[in-house]
Amino acid sequence: MRVTIKDVAKKCGFSITSVSLVLNNKENKIPESSRQIILDTAEEMGYRPNRLAVGLLKKKTKLLGLVIPDNSNMFFSELSKSVEVAARKRGYSLIYGNTSDVYSRDYEYLKLFVDHQVDGIVITKSSHLPEKDDIRNMEFLEKSGVPFVVVDRQPKGFKSNMVTVNNVTGGYLATRYLIEQGHSRIGCFTGPLGLTTSQQRLEGYKNALAESNIDFDESLVVEGNFSSGFESKAMTRFIDEKVTAIFCQNDIMAFGIYREANKFGIKIPADLSVVGYDNINLCDIVYPGLTTIHQPIDQIGEESVRILTNLIDTSEEVPVEVKELEPKLVVRSSVLINRGGK
Amino acid sequence: MRVTIKDVAKKCGFSITSVSLVLNNKENKIPESSRQIILDTAEEMGYRPNRLAVGLLKKKTKLLGLVIPDNSNMFFSELSKSVEVAARKRGYSLIYGNTSDVYSRDYEYLKLFVDHQVDGIVITKSSHLPEKDDIRNMEFLEKSGVPFVVVDRQPKGFKSNMVTVNNVTGGYLATRYLIEQGHSRIGCFTGPLGLTTSQQRLEGYKNALAESNIDFDESLVVEGNFSSGFESKAMTRFIDEKVTAIFCQNDIMAFGIYREANKFGIKIPADLSVVGYDNINLCDIVYPGLTTIHQPIDQIGEESVRILTNLIDTSEEVPVEVKELEPKLVVRSSVLINRGGK
Repeated sequence: MRVTIKDVAKKCGFSITSVSLVLNNKENKIPESSRQIILDTAEEMGYRPNRLAVGLLKKKTKLLGLVIPDNSNMFFSELSKSVEVAARKRGYSLIYGNTSDVYSRDYEYLKLFVDHQVDGIVITKSSHLPEKDDIRNMEFLEKSGVPFVVVDRQPKGFKSNMVTVNNVTGGYLATRYLIEQGHSRIGCFTGPLGLTTSQQRLEGYKNALAESNIDFDESLVVEGNFSSGFESKAMTRFIDEKVTAIFCQNDIMAFGIYREANKFGIKIPADLSVVGYDNINLCDIVYPGLTTIHQPIDQIGEESVRILTNLIDTSEEVPVEVKELEPKLVVRSSVLINRGGK
Repeated sequence: MRVTIKDVAKKCGFSITSVSLVLNNKENKIPESSRQIILDTAEEMGYRPNRLAVGLLKKKTKLLGLVIPDNSNMFFSELSKSVEVAARKRGYSLIYGNTSDVYSRDYEYLKLFVDHQVDGIVITKSSHLPEKDDIRNMEFLEKSGVPFVVVDRQPKGFKSNMVTVNNVTGGYLATRYLIEQGHSRIGCFTGPLGLTTSQQRLEGYKNALAESNIDFDESLVVEGNFSSGFESKAMTRFIDEKVTAIFCQNDIMAFGIYREANKFGIKIPADLSVVGYDNINLCDIVYPGLTTIHQPIDQIGEESVRILTNLIDTSEEVPVEVKELEPKLVVRSSVLINRGGK
């Protein structure tokens, strides 16, 4: 059973009022020697303050809720770590909701977090959330009065506080690098095309092609799922289409391409160049090291919690803040340099 | 601002008492038509019940706390997902504490979770937690009265409810398989040797050697950290010692060995066989597919939450339960089969 102030009072022989004043750090005239006895007894008995009661009183729980699609996808597990680190720095703990990309759970978690009186919410929506659910969720959050920040994936038709990384630039940087190394037949292995994230990376890919007067060819685009399972289908298409390079819209899908290449005896980068997206820890561990687009995951966590705690701490109307961070290219060894010997 | 019962009452014109009775599902004589108006108004205004108040009343928060060393280590990110799935099935949410393997944070999170009135705690301690801190933490939890379950890593000198996987068997299965394929000079790349997990896997390695009358050679054991950073040092030693196979005590360290092998032009499995431990999702994606020891992560989450919620739901003394799950060998392509052509 939980130790109460009453239990401590009984044990040390002081009144409940005295014990309460001391343990709650309220001003009091209790002599230092008695104070010490009360504190020691509380410590020894394992007394802890009741945060629920404090929360009700102060209307603050010091809890944030985090909704993410899939913690076994490394981008999101690194992201949840970074949000948690940023939250802890500011004295907040994190309740964590993993939707396993089942979109009805986005709403379930939002309701749950509001019921738990979290002080704020960080959300990255599920991959296949229909537009009407997306709007319903955003409206629910607005009505709830709980401050929230959207991360990475943009809600449809709704302007909210948001932290994102410029996906158009990311797609552009990856593709331009491949073009600079002499590639012109470049496959694009995308995430779910219902997500703005995927659409924007594809847009960047198209921009880089256009800039170099390379015609966009729809048959070089294969839709994936930001996870594994589509790499075999994708590789067959890319081989048929005789691409010399592939821009994969995340690292996990790039690793899938590595495996397929190995199955077919295709050497990376000699026969096929690959660029990924995210720069998760494993890019350094695979062979050859994966050239990829770095997403500043720590900064995403930091910025989203900064915006959120600002919203929590102010009682004034704050203009909506959309923080767009910049991606960058990280060159490792998965792209054949100077193809065609320029 | 959060919508209160008072706000709903004001908007729909019913008394606070009526609205409170309806919204809290208390018995009442309010006509169905009025009830519906109240419910519709509450829904429209985004009213949500105050779980803090409910928690104080019922002394239950429906929150569990999870302490893990590092969510960017895939074993732990998959584990936190599995704990969260099992918790949700039983109507609990998860507050999540990532210690980043900084051992003082184990205690910080335990205190925080107790203060937040979580109904129960699941903990995997940090890698380098000193014995005295380990005991202090366990004693703190006992005193707190909050039910808890230890997962994966055993506390020193303390018997508690626990879910673990038989690490001796795991180490044995990995090593025996290598011996069966004709290897006798087998390196062992361990986790931190202060952890029972690492010690037990090493014990299994020794048992398999002894069973086949292969002398244990201490110079074939290199201590790692269950993460990356030691693979280069380890590989140098293994090359010097002319091992033909390496048992790595987790998959991440095995991927590190893959990279080092590639650097040296050593082919896996032709020149060097490798067995990992954990069976994280990526074992299928690397090339060659990593032969490894499967840890039943979903079952670990399920069992730990089952034990925990049993403890929460009962007011009786329950005998300490230690659930030991069985690991199994998963054969992929990283071991040279029938070396020596047996």
